[in-house]
Amino acid sequence: MNDILDIDGVLLTPLKIMDVEGGNVFHGMRSYDPGFAGFGEAYFSSVESKAIKAWKRHHQMVLNLIVPLGSVRFVIYDTRQNSSSYGKCEDVILSQKNYYRLTVPPMLWLGFQGMGESANMLLNIANITHSPEEVDRKEMNEIKYDWGFTK
Amino acid sequence: MNDILDIDGVLLTPLKIMDVEGGNVFHGMRSYDPGFAGFGEAYFSSVESKAIKAWKRHHQMVLNLIVPLGSVRFVIYDTRQNSSSYGKCEDVILSQKNYYRLTVPPMLWLGFQGMGESANMLLNIANITHSPEEVDRKEMNEIKYDWGFTK
Repeated sequence: MNDILDIDGVLLTPLKIMDVEGGNVFHGMRSYDPGFAGFGEAYFSSVESKAIKAWKRHHQMVLNLIVPLGSVRFVIYDTRQNSSSYGKCEDVILSQKNYYRLTVPPMLWLGFQGMGESANMLLNIANITHSPEEVDRKEMNEIKYDWGFTK
Repeated sequence: MNDILDIDGVLLTPLKIMDVEGGNVFHGMRSYDPGFAGFGEAYFSSVESKAIKAWKRHHQMVLNLIVPLGSVRFVIYDTRQNSSSYGKCEDVILSQKNYYRLTVPPMLWLGFQGMGESANMLLNIANITHSPEEVDRKEMNEIKYDWGFTK
């Protein structure tokens, strides 16, 4: 049932939304789900409308990204030598209407953008806790991608 | 730094909100945080304004509850024999403005209510995956609590 974004090792896993009286329940991640790589930390990141947070690359963190609120565009750029998708840059927009979990393995460049007009929020369920030492950064303009509109 | 709701074993742990350009980052849970009891499942539950979801009691699940959106009132009722807080019913309202993680150990009755006028959402980081067999339920009126207003 998993779609695979055309970047080696990246997973897009459809998530269920359960109809519940008084308010729906939205699946996130279970310990036996595809992409789960252990639990280190779960945190939220909000993204203002049109704002861009780019780029970061993690050396150890496996990211599992879920968008419970608004709409977020994720862009992944592959510079891993020996990767079958070397040089590719792919994107996906997640929201409650396109409710998937995006699993991003280490050593891929990731950027994201708030696409909803009001609040946009992602949850990252990561296999390790945040550590600046395992993160590389680039300025937005250092990787070519047409973000369409920017804040 | 932990406040303790006056129910034995329940934790209220303050969480950080980090100012970040383009959108803030909201802490959730780390594997070494107080209240962490292993990772089984993370899921979201939304609660419509004024709606009440009550009551449930888990035999095995430790709940870690975070409210990234809107405002949710949690009510905990203790019927555990030998508990120092036996018979007590306590409540707390969580939101981004009162940003805490609420840890609920097994065998406590829990209900919650959407307090914000629009969307209200909680994240539960649980030590086990959902299993109907470890859950007891009661109708809202079976435990006396003044919810103030109802949908």
